[in-house]
Amino acid sequence: MTADLPDKALELRSLVTSRGTLELSLHDVPVPSPAANEVLVRVEASPINPSDLGVLIPGADVSTAAVSGTPEYPVVTATLGEGALKGLSARVDTPLPVGNEGAGTVVAAGSSAAAQALLGKTVGVAGGGMYTQYRAVDASACLALPDGATPKDGASSFVNPLTALGMLETMRGEGHSALVHTAAASNLGQMLVKLCLKDGVPLVNIVRKPDQEQLLKSLGAVHVVNSTSPSFSTDLVEALEATSATIAFDATGGGTLASHILNGMEQAASANATEYSRYGSAVHKQVYIYGGLDTGPTTLTRNFGMAWGVGGWLLTPFLQNIGAEGFARLRARVAAELTTTFSSTYTQEVSLAGMLQPEAFHAYVKRATGEKFLVAPQADS
Amino acid sequence: MTADLPDKALELRSLVTSRGTLELSLHDVPVPSPAANEVLVRVEASPINPSDLGVLIPGADVSTAAVSGTPEYPVVTATLGEGALKGLSARVDTPLPVGNEGAGTVVAAGSSAAAQALLGKTVGVAGGGMYTQYRAVDASACLALPDGATPKDGASSFVNPLTALGMLETMRGEGHSALVHTAAASNLGQMLVKLCLKDGVPLVNIVRKPDQEQLLKSLGAVHVVNSTSPSFSTDLVEALEATSATIAFDATGGGTLASHILNGMEQAASANATEYSRYGSAVHKQVYIYGGLDTGPTTLTRNFGMAWGVGGWLLTPFLQNIGAEGFARLRARVAAELTTTFSSTYTQEVSLAGMLQPEAFHAYVKRATGEKFLVAPQADS
Repeated sequence: MTADLPDKALELRSLVTSRGTLELSLHDVPVPSPAANEVLVRVEASPINPSDLGVLIPGADVSTAAVSGTPEYPVVTATLGEGALKGLSARVDTPLPVGNEGAGTVVAAGSSAAAQALLGKTVGVAGGGMYTQYRAVDASACLALPDGATPKDGASSFVNPLTALGMLETMRGEGHSALVHTAAASNLGQMLVKLCLKDGVPLVNIVRKPDQEQLLKSLGAVHVVNSTSPSFSTDLVEALEATSATIAFDATGGGTLASHILNGMEQAASANATEYSRYGSAVHKQVYIYGGLDTGPTTLTRNFGMAWGVGGWLLTPFLQNIGAEGFARLRARVAAELTTTFSSTYTQEVSLAGMLQPEAFHAYVKRATGEKFLVAPQADS
Repeated sequence: MTADLPDKALELRSLVTSRGTLELSLHDVPVPSPAANEVLVRVEASPINPSDLGVLIPGADVSTAAVSGTPEYPVVTATLGEGALKGLSARVDTPLPVGNEGAGTVVAAGSSAAAQALLGKTVGVAGGGMYTQYRAVDASACLALPDGATPKDGASSFVNPLTALGMLETMRGEGHSALVHTAAASNLGQMLVKLCLKDGVPLVNIVRKPDQEQLLKSLGAVHVVNSTSPSFSTDLVEALEATSATIAFDATGGGTLASHILNGMEQAASANATEYSRYGSAVHKQVYIYGGLDTGPTTLTRNFGMAWGVGGWLLTPFLQNIGAEGFARLRARVAAELTTTFSSTYTQEVSLAGMLQPEAFHAYVKRATGEKFLVAPQADS
């Protein structure tokens, strides 16, 4: 352990109580000592991703959120929504660390060669519990950032880049040649635009606002359709015909968007059909739901034949399926293109205590596309 | 060609007109001469399957059906439902033959050895257009029935037996060990009960009526749950826990049944979970929709984690995927167990002209589970 490290550090925790409330607060926790193959990372930057909110504010009615405590140790309290407690029984009364990924400096290392090799390096980490000041993680969980890259550059080096790469790998692995993405103006969506341009993969971007169309077009996106436009259905079919996209990744989940996409794909596939088939086109049409911006039911109006699938898609099982070699290959690409293809932009930066201030809290819980928070655990509140 | 064959024969055809009507009628067609590798089958028995109704009465509002013509040549006319014509453009104004499968006697054969070997045999045929008196089909489309088996025994030797076998092959191929079936009191469902008992595969049968529960239990079914019972949800979860079934085949399609099954599977899978996972259980849960008894939208209330899929399942692409060897293996099993595992029962028999009589027509278009019609093309009207 390096002599100038503190004994204690701040860590954000999320607590669901058996009384049906949610409490977010800062805890003083001991700075851990790394085990043989671990490194101690001084966390300097960590994004707030949609996947973090699922752990941070599960089932909470955020309109009831109130802040108490002190400026250094604020506490956010909110009421859980109707019926939410039932699905959370396994975490009741246990304060959970939050934050899937982040980046920082390796300030101490265990005895193994892999750990020692990272000492002093700036690393991206997918270790969980990253909304903290110091985090001991296995050396294998670290991605050494290229020379000159800052912790801010590497804060989002795991979830979004590997998700974008995972979508393309899934597309290719399942025999498709072009894809559709919804909530396409998100940080992930912008990354996917850059990645697909680089790899020459036709991409249909579905957004909800005119300024999002412009944003994506300024990045070079060719096909951007607005789901709130009166001409959405015909625009979508046109883009699907132009790209032959037969797989979609949908961040919204609920509502009729998945159904619209499948029906659009079927229309595009059968545009030139001359023979009657009561089972629709033989082209397999797939929508993967990877998020839940709309937590309502998914409604499928099945006018898209019989060759179709809708299912959940999640990064972790995808990475397990591709194995260690595949994972290493994708991570190497992320490192090589960290500040180009896989760069992220943030609209606001907050400290750990700042995360629990009303204005910031109510902004990031909205999951608004285009809004992106970066947490700086070393910053003063 | 054998000398005692007629020149002309009756054939049922279904016509969608550009005026938005459906017409079912009998045509006098020439008795075909078999090509080198073809045989001519005198069709004696052919079932009316749900999959035949899709070709017979596509999109028709059957409440508008009226019968005209003569007793020997009746004509059923009905109006197409709102918007139905659009999806049928490829078949407008072309009278289509109907009837996926049937059985009969090979009365003539082409010159090839395979065709000649079938001469005089009783065969099951999946040739399409089987609601006819004589049908020339490729020798490879014929299944020679075992000694003593009648055309009635072999009439349903293709669609239901191969669908039941295909469900089990799909289950095994995708790593599941037990399955769920809906509309389970159908002829197919009864076959699946017998097949799963024989193969030792745990099966959860979902039915809608108490007498259907009793019917399946009389066949030896262990798990039968009634979706109209007030205790359906808990009964279903109990059966899913008992069987560990994680794949379902659903004939209804629309409504909330697929969602109920996925949620039940998730409850069963997480019954013993102690650790909180916001993404639900890692067990993949799959529902295949293979029918459309309910043509309304499919509504999925996604409380079943992220490891799930819903999709279409169809016999033809399944058979294409398993290849010629797999197909031959399954057909050999059907022949060997034709009058045991794969036997069918029929509630009514009709001639070709009888199919177009009001009472019969209104009975089979209901697709009522348990009601099953057999067409006897050689019978007098």
